[in-house]
Amino acid sequence: MNVNDDVEFYQQHTKNSHLLYKNSLNLFPGGISHNIRYFKPYPFFVKKAIGKYLIDVDDNRYTDYWMGHWALILGHSPKNVSLALSKQIKNGTLYGTVNNASIELADTIQKLMPKAEKMRFSSTGSEATMYAVRLARAASRKRIVAKIIGGWHGFNSSLLKSVNYPFEIEEGLGLDIDSKYVISIPFNDIDLSLKLLNQIKEDLACIIVEPILAGAGCIIPHNEYLQRLQEFSKKYNIIFILDEIVTGFRLSIHGAYKIFKLDPDLFTLGKIAGGGLPIGVVCGKNEILSLSNPIDKKNKNLICSIGGGTFASNPVTMTAGLKTLQFLKNNENQVYSKIDNLGKYTRKELQKIFDENNIEIKITGIGSLFNIHFLNEKVKEINNANDVALADKEKLRLYHFALISRHKIFFLPFKMGAISYQHSKTDVDYLLKSTRSIIDSKIL
Amino acid sequence: MNVNDDVEFYQQHTKNSHLLYKNSLNLFPGGISHNIRYFKPYPFFVKKAIGKYLIDVDDNRYTDYWMGHWALILGHSPKNVSLALSKQIKNGTLYGTVNNASIELADTIQKLMPKAEKMRFSSTGSEATMYAVRLARAASRKRIVAKIIGGWHGFNSSLLKSVNYPFEIEEGLGLDIDSKYVISIPFNDIDLSLKLLNQIKEDLACIIVEPILAGAGCIIPHNEYLQRLQEFSKKYNIIFILDEIVTGFRLSIHGAYKIFKLDPDLFTLGKIAGGGLPIGVVCGKNEILSLSNPIDKKNKNLICSIGGGTFASNPVTMTAGLKTLQFLKNNENQVYSKIDNLGKYTRKELQKIFDENNIEIKITGIGSLFNIHFLNEKVKEINNANDVALADKEKLRLYHFALISRHKIFFLPFKMGAISYQHSKTDVDYLLKSTRSIIDSKIL
Repeated sequence: MNVNDDVEFYQQHTKNSHLLYKNSLNLFPGGISHNIRYFKPYPFFVKKAIGKYLIDVDDNRYTDYWMGHWALILGHSPKNVSLALSKQIKNGTLYGTVNNASIELADTIQKLMPKAEKMRFSSTGSEATMYAVRLARAASRKRIVAKIIGGWHGFNSSLLKSVNYPFEIEEGLGLDIDSKYVISIPFNDIDLSLKLLNQIKEDLACIIVEPILAGAGCIIPHNEYLQRLQEFSKKYNIIFILDEIVTGFRLSIHGAYKIFKLDPDLFTLGKIAGGGLPIGVVCGKNEILSLSNPIDKKNKNLICSIGGGTFASNPVTMTAGLKTLQFLKNNENQVYSKIDNLGKYTRKELQKIFDENNIEIKITGIGSLFNIHFLNEKVKEINNANDVALADKEKLRLYHFALISRHKIFFLPFKMGAISYQHSKTDVDYLLKSTRSIIDSKIL
Repeated sequence: MNVNDDVEFYQQHTKNSHLLYKNSLNLFPGGISHNIRYFKPYPFFVKKAIGKYLIDVDDNRYTDYWMGHWALILGHSPKNVSLALSKQIKNGTLYGTVNNASIELADTIQKLMPKAEKMRFSSTGSEATMYAVRLARAASRKRIVAKIIGGWHGFNSSLLKSVNYPFEIEEGLGLDIDSKYVISIPFNDIDLSLKLLNQIKEDLACIIVEPILAGAGCIIPHNEYLQRLQEFSKKYNIIFILDEIVTGFRLSIHGAYKIFKLDPDLFTLGKIAGGGLPIGVVCGKNEILSLSNPIDKKNKNLICSIGGGTFASNPVTMTAGLKTLQFLKNNENQVYSKIDNLGKYTRKELQKIFDENNIEIKITGIGSLFNIHFLNEKVKEINNANDVALADKEKLRLYHFALISRHKIFFLPFKMGAISYQHSKTDVDYLLKSTRSIIDSKIL
């Protein structure tokens, strides 16, 4: 079979999406509101999402492994969340004031993750990491932020650097002011990382790191990489920030910091914490967060001014987040053993299928998360974002697109997949079978 | 009567709020997730909001003029929005993909505001203004941003400067990197503004301005102030950004730019555009927005990378925004003539009451928005944020608190009020009567 057959098949079955995409180009640059949501020849347009499925405007039903940027651990519109929301939306969506719903969610987070001694709600992860960095600069009175090459912390100006290959080039126009104070270190290379950090430690405010590199390709930390970064931070009084926007409530209900035995000064949450509605949370040590307390502070320049924002603590998000976390808490073993086991099974069986067919791949992942990387003469292992960038991305694209087109299985092309509580072994077996069929078609 | 009587009365009637506030202090710095939501002795905690009312955890019912940071032009949970949301929440809250709901909302915005040649959705206003500034720097290849003294564009690092009195002092710790490239000009003083702009025009990327200074105190532009800023921008090829997050769909369904006959290069929307759910929109000239189009761009450093974000274009926000704008469109005359007339009546009658009682105040406002300022020997007029800051803010606080405590009328203390379609002349008459009663109590 020819790779063009998949494109043709897709076009035949997504005619309404094609029309909508043409409209969309008149409204949005590139027809999208998030860069990664575009894929060739045009993305399908979703009209509804239920359980593990996305349904597009041509009535194609896709098994969804993208799951709302990995936020939907219980699947789309789980019943307990929907039921609570159906009441809430009649009783206000935006109070604009303090409210008891926000206390309930915060209290639930604090009990599950006691290192959240204090927290501040915002509406996006990008805001939460921006506030974390601001708090770190405020607490340390230093300026430099160290991040990981390929690390993704949202679209805020403070952290939009060394995200995409080639990493040494700016992430775009209009960002040069902040980027001077951001240095980047290579994931899983502790010696080089510490060497680079050492050079700028006098003005180093913080190190911010994802426990696993999620957006960069689902890359797992080597033994002690994170611990040694933390050790360096503690030694030199540098603030250690863990970005748990993807991993929080995903790898464990107590956060990745528990799994990796870490003690972050600050950490950020998002995605799952909002139960499918917009949220960001900056959490951590009372001593640091308290800098943001505006009450009775006489001098505005002695506090750290962070949002908030109009939509912060809105009762729709608070309700969805609370119901999601309550379900996870009440069904902890059931949920995590199911999704983690399915994740393990998926990784093992996918690897086996490609091995049997002599296609060199590496599956990375942990718990319910996984990503495939097609190896080549340049890349034989996946240890950092550079490896992912230099692996055979065109094969990954063809594989993901074939899954979409022929098999109605949706991974956002290139991105890792997430198993939700709605997925079953049958779904994974169908993914495995579809993968075999794609291999047989010889497009890879 | 003594001012302490109002505090005591409030405390007696908000006992559950007091308990919750104590809990809240263990979770959030200062017990809040947005600095301005605190007021003395502690804010009441809302448990639901319907129509024009906020209901707190002690079952007090407040007539709400804060209206979700002025976002809720149709009131809390209007029926047509609730009905549509009740369907949507069962059919997905976060697709994470392109979707037809976002096309419908964008198309509606574009038809109402044709200067939105292209747009990008994000989840907060703070993100939208950050992206507007980034686009301006990208398009101009210049660095300096000019903003208004007292102008409020959210908590992003790029624009958090000269917001609060004293304006020349930093807005807090951790912000010094960006703030070097922000200069501030005085609202309504065109000569001084142009003089300051002239000095830095070689490296000036953009001027960002709210059509009316909303957060700073509901201050209306003098004749031609905005036009002359725009004229200067056009002359020197500086990008003119209008921040319509408050005014868009509030002053007119076609934006304040129509009312003030302006032609912004970029403008931002938020609040009303999301129908009570989290949103930000950066809109404007195709030529500038197109810099953010990531498709087929070979070099990442030649585009302007803006979000998006996980929650951008989520179908809950898209649905609430669409239903709100459709209602405004279908009932344009009815809605705007009602709220604008009530606004006019409120401003006129409030001014009269204070005048009759020889209390020097000035009511500022336009359309459905208004704010009271207590004058003193230093301040006899309200033309800019400095005047608001130097007016008698303690009297304003006492007045707003007395309205909350005794009369169950809610303005967020110090902040302007907004009339929604749910408010009636009876409500305003009750506000007037309550104001007379407060004046009679001699606390002001």
